[in-house]
Amino acid sequence: MEIHQVTHQLILTSRLDDLGHLPVKVLKSVSGGTAAALDPIGCKVGEWVFTIANSAARTASGDDRYLTDLTISGIIDNWSLDVDKD
Amino acid sequence: MEIHQVTHQLILTSRLDDLGHLPVKVLKSVSGGTAAALDPIGCKVGEWVFTIANSAARTASGDDRYLTDLTISGIIDNWSLDVDKD
Amino acid sequence: MEIHQVTHQLILTSRLDDLGHLPVKVLKSVSGGTAAALDPIGCKVGEWVFTIANSAARTASGDDRYLTDLTISGIIDNWSLDVDKD
Amino acid sequence: MEIHQVTHQLILTSRLDDLGHLPVKVLKSVSGGTAAALDPIGCKVGEWVFTIANSAARTASGDDRYLTDLTISGIIDNWSLDVDKD
Amino acid sequence: MEIHQVTHQLILTSRLDDLGHLPVKVLKSVSGGTAAALDPIGCKVGEWVFTIANSAARTASGDDRYLTDLTISGIIDNWSLDVDKD
Repeated sequence: MEIHQVTHQLILTSRLDDLGHLPVKVLKSVSGGTAAALDPIGCKVGEWVFTIANSAARTASGDDRYLTDLTISGIIDNWSLDVDKD
Repeated sequence: MEIHQVTHQLILTSRLDDLGHLPVKVLKSVSGGTAAALDPIGCKVGEWVFTIANSAARTASGDDRYLTDLTISGIIDNWSLDVDKD
Repeated sequence: MEIHQVTHQLILTSRLDDLGHLPVKVLKSVSGGTAAALDPIGCKVGEWVFTIANSAARTASGDDRYLTDLTISGIIDNWSLDVDKD
Repeated sequence: MEIHQVTHQLILTSRLDDLGHLPVKVLKSVSGGTAAALDPIGCKVGEWVFTIANSAARTASGDDRYLTDLTISGIIDNWSLDVDKD
Repeated sequence: MEIHQVTHQLILTSRLDDLGHLPVKVLKSVSGGTAAALDPIGCKVGEWVFTIANSAARTASGDDRYLTDLTISGIIDNWSLDVDKD
């Protein structure tokens, strides 16, 4: 799993039906990369989250028919880039 | 999922039958990498899109028998590299 | 599989039920990257471990219903960055 | 999917039976990385090809029992590093 | 698939039962990264090998119940970093 910080919500003008109605959040990883994930938890901009990839991401979204390869699966209580650098 | 910009359509001289008849688009990621994806939506060069990888990519293509590991799954309403740098 | 060193345990305030009750450990890879993994073995901070990704990670967690894409699967007897540089 | 250029054919002295009898080609990606892929198409050194990874790679090889995580799935008609840099 | 060179055998003090009894080898990739793989072939330190990842890695290990995401699947007859740089 990866550690990411939520940067904003993605607005899609055209979207496949099987994405369901969950919001898609844009995330930054600890190493600076950008990704997008389904959010079944309702996390806020600035929060640090924990994400699950690939086949387990579909189950984590709450419905195996949802189309996703990355799903937000937990909000981290106490994280900072300083913790990571210890 | 990843955020990509469409750069051009790929012209294939030899192609496996099970790719179906969907166009294959060449994409640049936010970090500068190049990838290719099936496009069931019909997006245009220059648009920013949202892509799904691996097993969910096959379902996203509209037919689980299609051979793909990356499928364009939404067009992003408002994206720029500036948004990403905020 | 990858070689990682355990840095700390992750504290989650909100967590999907299907993560089960296994601890989630934060790991550093040999190349410096950060990841998080389910820990069915009970390893300690500072130990070097061996991790399994993707679909085999679910089986490695002890229950295929657990949501994970990375699971700690062995503790390494003798590892140091020096060994890696030989 | 990824865009790769064929560099040479791999000669294996010991090989698992379930690789079948397809040639294994060594490839360079657009970003400079090296990979190996099964080749059910018969492409030549120097050609630019399009590859499919992971579970779809097994289907793309022509037999789901073949062991592969990367399969060459099309030859690109018109590609150069200059196209990529436009 | 990837091209790797065998650097040493991994000694595990604690190990999940479903890894089976195959040795785990530590590998360097052509690009310098480190990984670990199950070895059903019996390759030696210094040899260049060819590895298969993800779901096909389980089949390649000889038993789909084995827990692995990377399995050594062939020994390369003639490889050097010079070949790669041609």
